[in-house]
Amino acid sequence: MDAANQLIVELGDRSYPIHIGEGLLQTSDVFVPYIQGEQILIVTNETVAPLYLGSIEKSLSRYQVDTLVLPDGERYKTLQYLNKIYDRLLEKRHNRSTTLIALGGGVIGDMTGFAAATYQRGVNFIQVPTTLLAQVDSSVGGKTAVNHPQGKNMIGAFYQPECVIADTATLKTLPERELHAGLAEVVKYGLIADEDFFCWLETNVEQLMGKCPDSLAVAIMRSCENKARIVSQDERETGIRAILNLGHTFGHAIETAQSYTDWLHGEAIAAGMVMAAELSRLLGWLPSDDVLRARELLGRCQLPLWAPPTMSADRFLDLMAVDKKVMDGSLRLVLLKAIGQAIVTSEFDHQLLGELLKSRL
Amino acid sequence: MDAANQLIVELGDRSYPIHIGEGLLQTSDVFVPYIQGEQILIVTNETVAPLYLGSIEKSLSRYQVDTLVLPDGERYKTLQYLNKIYDRLLEKRHNRSTTLIALGGGVIGDMTGFAAATYQRGVNFIQVPTTLLAQVDSSVGGKTAVNHPQGKNMIGAFYQPECVIADTATLKTLPERELHAGLAEVVKYGLIADEDFFCWLETNVEQLMGKCPDSLAVAIMRSCENKARIVSQDERETGIRAILNLGHTFGHAIETAQSYTDWLHGEAIAAGMVMAAELSRLLGWLPSDDVLRARELLGRCQLPLWAPPTMSADRFLDLMAVDKKVMDGSLRLVLLKAIGQAIVTSEFDHQLLGELLKSRL
Repeated sequence: MDAANQLIVELGDRSYPIHIGEGLLQTSDVFVPYIQGEQILIVTNETVAPLYLGSIEKSLSRYQVDTLVLPDGERYKTLQYLNKIYDRLLEKRHNRSTTLIALGGGVIGDMTGFAAATYQRGVNFIQVPTTLLAQVDSSVGGKTAVNHPQGKNMIGAFYQPECVIADTATLKTLPERELHAGLAEVVKYGLIADEDFFCWLETNVEQLMGKCPDSLAVAIMRSCENKARIVSQDERETGIRAILNLGHTFGHAIETAQSYTDWLHGEAIAAGMVMAAELSRLLGWLPSDDVLRARELLGRCQLPLWAPPTMSADRFLDLMAVDKKVMDGSLRLVLLKAIGQAIVTSEFDHQLLGELLKSRL
Repeated sequence: MDAANQLIVELGDRSYPIHIGEGLLQTSDVFVPYIQGEQILIVTNETVAPLYLGSIEKSLSRYQVDTLVLPDGERYKTLQYLNKIYDRLLEKRHNRSTTLIALGGGVIGDMTGFAAATYQRGVNFIQVPTTLLAQVDSSVGGKTAVNHPQGKNMIGAFYQPECVIADTATLKTLPERELHAGLAEVVKYGLIADEDFFCWLETNVEQLMGKCPDSLAVAIMRSCENKARIVSQDERETGIRAILNLGHTFGHAIETAQSYTDWLHGEAIAAGMVMAAELSRLLGWLPSDDVLRARELLGRCQLPLWAPPTMSADRFLDLMAVDKKVMDGSLRLVLLKAIGQAIVTSEFDHQLLGELLKSRL
């Protein structure tokens, strides 16, 4: 494989490579160096299984390969479905040298990663993200989790995979709506840390919407580079890393209000980013031109640009208060000083937040 | 506090102190340096709560102190009861700077530690072990876990506390049977790594059985020192640390067969250690005199010296095969070369193991 299509996430003895390329899942070559024992459990979902499970299972047939197919959707990212992974591992007698392969989107990656972090106190884990969102987001950073009825990702661990394999060919089967949701996170990297990339996106967004493989590969690589750089500085999110949560405090509130059943994660985050940008403008930090550029780019990705009108300001504030980015009672938000420059702060005029939530732009 | 009553477990930036002494829980002094945020959740059980919860809660009243009282017993060390900890944390809106305090024995410590390892991907954790077993065992090593119906401690994490507070005064209220079970683990340190300590125990076992505070303090300190030394060499149990599991593969099989409801952990481990010693003798590694010394010392602690006669050899082997110390299909056991010298090996005559399990000594 072309070395240019590999990126190392630098985390000391927990460093790992991300392989990005078309057709990587066709053979076992890319897997074999990262499998240490004789046992593998592939965890996937009902949507992805018919597309890729059979061929991967076949190419890894030299190992004991077991599989678990979960229902598809964020609402199954629960302790109850996590337990099905443990059940299968124990039923098939997987030992501490087993390898878990997460084949699917962010939900499968988060759950399988958390299962790997906690099965027998930690086993090997390979991530095979099959959505754009997962390829640019959960493939870097080692965040694993399940949801709790009272909050998203409330139960989890920091746990790094052995490697990530992002085969861009899997995006051919990705529904349009999920492609758009993935682009929300791509745009995020431009907004928080990479103005040049934001400009590139303004020029190339139609190619991305049209699934041009080369443009997608560039967007994935650049997104992962940005995220890897930020995560390397702050593996356990005690500081700078929190800027990756631009739009997420707003977005999680939307998702929680909907019990994770209506909007996709990326859609909620797109709305949340516009809200964060708008609040930054109200605070006098961000020029209205920049808010407009953000709205426009996300709009061209066919993403929602505000929370659903059914959510009251009170409900919003209540849900935001339980978000895990709340520190000692003070709500911290990721806000923008410019395109490409985010800050994390609890020092903003909270009355303006209330006004923002009451407004319907 | 006397510096001699403090032991540092050396684990680089995860190092932490163990405070050992009488009456440490009387004031908040020993807690305060380890509490970083404003919120505390004390997790305890129905047996311990009436004895110590009120006074600790009161001495920490400058913080937001919430409590959770779980039923007492290994059978509640499940995902279901773990979830009650998450529920309480979220209900009371605990944020990432919260501190969890485990007040109780090994079950409370293991569950609370795992909750701390996984709530919002990791929060602070203070261990207050109130049984001898927990003071000499789970207070060192960072192993946290819950059980799965198909195996003990199958779901867990390595996670180090901020500190451990072992107040020997709590042993005054400890039932005799639990004291004896705790002594099983104390004897274990002598058997695996510390012949001098084993000899000291042969001389002082009656004082320990009589709850002599000074003797107990010596036994706790020496046990923790031994464990800390071994754990520091191998935090994540990839090698030498496994010798701490002397008797545990046999013992876990006994506990699983009983669904964790009959024998105490230490009782199962005592029987398991005698079985491991006896197998070591059958293999020609351990003189029969040493087996006798081990049986005698454990017998003076009023501990069981063999598995219950109702367990068949086949059931035993089946349960041992699922134990997490099985590596790639080969059963690894901790066996003895001498008193004070343990080894971990899968290279033993498996037929002798079968014979051992069929014999009723």
